[in-house]
Amino acid sequence: MIKSFLFDLKLKVKRMDKKILLAHGSGGTLSQQLIEAHFLPSLHNPILNLLDDGALINFEDLRLCMSTDTYVVDPIFFPGGDIGKLAVCGTINDMCMCGGKPLYLSIAVIIEEGFSMADLDRVIASIANTAKAAGVHVVTGDTKVVPHGKGDKIFINSTGIGHVSYSGTISGTNARNGDIIILSGTIGDHGMAVMSQREGLRFSGEIFSDVAHLNEIVRDILDVSSNIHCMRDPTRGGIASVLNEIADKSKKRFLIDEETIPVRPQVRGACEILGIDPMYVANEGKMLVFVAPEDAGKVLDKIRSHPLGKEAAIIGKVGEDSEGEVILNTLIGGKRILDRPTGEILPRIC
Amino acid sequence: MIKSFLFDLKLKVKRMDKKILLAHGSGGTLSQQLIEAHFLPSLHNPILNLLDDGALINFEDLRLCMSTDTYVVDPIFFPGGDIGKLAVCGTINDMCMCGGKPLYLSIAVIIEEGFSMADLDRVIASIANTAKAAGVHVVTGDTKVVPHGKGDKIFINSTGIGHVSYSGTISGTNARNGDIIILSGTIGDHGMAVMSQREGLRFSGEIFSDVAHLNEIVRDILDVSSNIHCMRDPTRGGIASVLNEIADKSKKRFLIDEETIPVRPQVRGACEILGIDPMYVANEGKMLVFVAPEDAGKVLDKIRSHPLGKEAAIIGKVGEDSEGEVILNTLIGGKRILDRPTGEILPRIC
Repeated sequence: MIKSFLFDLKLKVKRMDKKILLAHGSGGTLSQQLIEAHFLPSLHNPILNLLDDGALINFEDLRLCMSTDTYVVDPIFFPGGDIGKLAVCGTINDMCMCGGKPLYLSIAVIIEEGFSMADLDRVIASIANTAKAAGVHVVTGDTKVVPHGKGDKIFINSTGIGHVSYSGTISGTNARNGDIIILSGTIGDHGMAVMSQREGLRFSGEIFSDVAHLNEIVRDILDVSSNIHCMRDPTRGGIASVLNEIADKSKKRFLIDEETIPVRPQVRGACEILGIDPMYVANEGKMLVFVAPEDAGKVLDKIRSHPLGKEAAIIGKVGEDSEGEVILNTLIGGKRILDRPTGEILPRIC
Repeated sequence: MIKSFLFDLKLKVKRMDKKILLAHGSGGTLSQQLIEAHFLPSLHNPILNLLDDGALINFEDLRLCMSTDTYVVDPIFFPGGDIGKLAVCGTINDMCMCGGKPLYLSIAVIIEEGFSMADLDRVIASIANTAKAAGVHVVTGDTKVVPHGKGDKIFINSTGIGHVSYSGTISGTNARNGDIIILSGTIGDHGMAVMSQREGLRFSGEIFSDVAHLNEIVRDILDVSSNIHCMRDPTRGGIASVLNEIADKSKKRFLIDEETIPVRPQVRGACEILGIDPMYVANEGKMLVFVAPEDAGKVLDKIRSHPLGKEAAIIGKVGEDSEGEVILNTLIGGKRILDRPTGEILPRIC
């Protein structure tokens, strides 16, 4: 009986292994496995292999960056933003994280048959306003419509081209021993804003998404320091995922102090109620910066002088070489390994 | 009674006007209206306003082109190709149509939960093989997963960057009086291949999609003529849509001889059975070239010398200025206006 049950279970697991799961899109371990075991073996090339947020391209005398992202957030309107603003800011930020100045965007939409034209207009206006505010141009686009029930309202792909003039190397593989790790503000706002809207939850104090374009802050800090080694915006999977990814790729141990990580009280409260660690919750207007210790002070000051970076903080540093791990000094005084998420905590958050 | 019926109908139409219809994604009149009435008013800028297949960007001393397209074809595997090959060829061809040499691609997928990993691997291999054959590099990507029933197997966005070194101007606004119109081969193959696969139809003689990358042909003809004024690949909506679009934008009258347009017998047969005009059926490996008469011969020869262009033909010419119309000398000896399609003839063909 038990044997047969176990056999069935094994069979089920084996079958599940051969299907795409929601967790494959989580930004966590399964996402990484999907990319490394299925995409890279066929598509590998020196640029793609870096798996940074964007690709650094050397063409003739120019250094360009290219970045793509598709947005499938549910709901499409949430406190603090919408899928249009998210699509513009997200791809702008990915270009910034390569040290690029975002210049041009493409916007390609997949609309579900029956989607409201008024909602479409609202999304388009949001794309236009955000692009204008960020100083980027939407230069080309595409529109597809799929039958009702074969999509979900609207999905948006945005792909960007930026110009990289920074003299240093910025990459997820480039965190160096002794680097200071700066976080540009509070964590968890975007994920919990979407979550509360989706589930109709009411918390004490409304939670707004932090969705914002970071190109001004990035321009400012690249101006004051030529010792920035890595930047990353902690979206899907939160800062826990991103820190682990960089630690893995740079083969370092990171030491993070939990008490230095800013979290808004209402976000912390909502996370506690839902049993979610804010370290794993998506952000859409925050960044992690790895900078040589001698420049950490001026970079932190520069970030704090921008309205989007007032709550920036040093949250840790890069320790010695290792296989890639993130050690957290916890609030209660212990130490633990901060893992990547394996499953899907908050699906369709971006 | 009739009055009330008409009132109901009016109300229904009014309501329908405010929702996205499948036909908004057809590449026909409604697609054009959607873009001109909803996207352009917010997003307009000198580059986007041209509404060419790709955007021509002048950056520092370089002329680049950028093009984006999302592929939602159903079924994802069809005779002659699959969604992966289509995603690479389609965006390569759009860059070629701006006179660009395709260099870099991004690939962003939206996968439906439960999609078969084996099918994903097949699609990825097809992307990789096609990109390699075409000499372009996939430099960045994105993977999203949506819940079962909120997508349909896999949607792929590909966005490309190319380099434009051609001295002339190539644009849908640039067809000139007297230009010769060359079609690079048979029409309707892709649309009817997908259609027959989808509906499980059997025709006499199998129909294969023509999906192919045209970068070699385009490189060759740009080498032999500096008088190419417009190029376009007739995808959604077929050559009827594309000819109308160019006639509109260039403000010309086109004169087309139906008998010169190559159509495979099995495609013509399938179209007759289904009551579809092949002029409105999608192609994915064909192009229309508008060239000054003095260069038409050598451009035609060049196209015919390539395996993909053996059946190329001169199908008509650009007449005088007009509001933009396409006049067809029909097979039976009459003349008629070849209109854009208004509705959706073949949904999800690309």
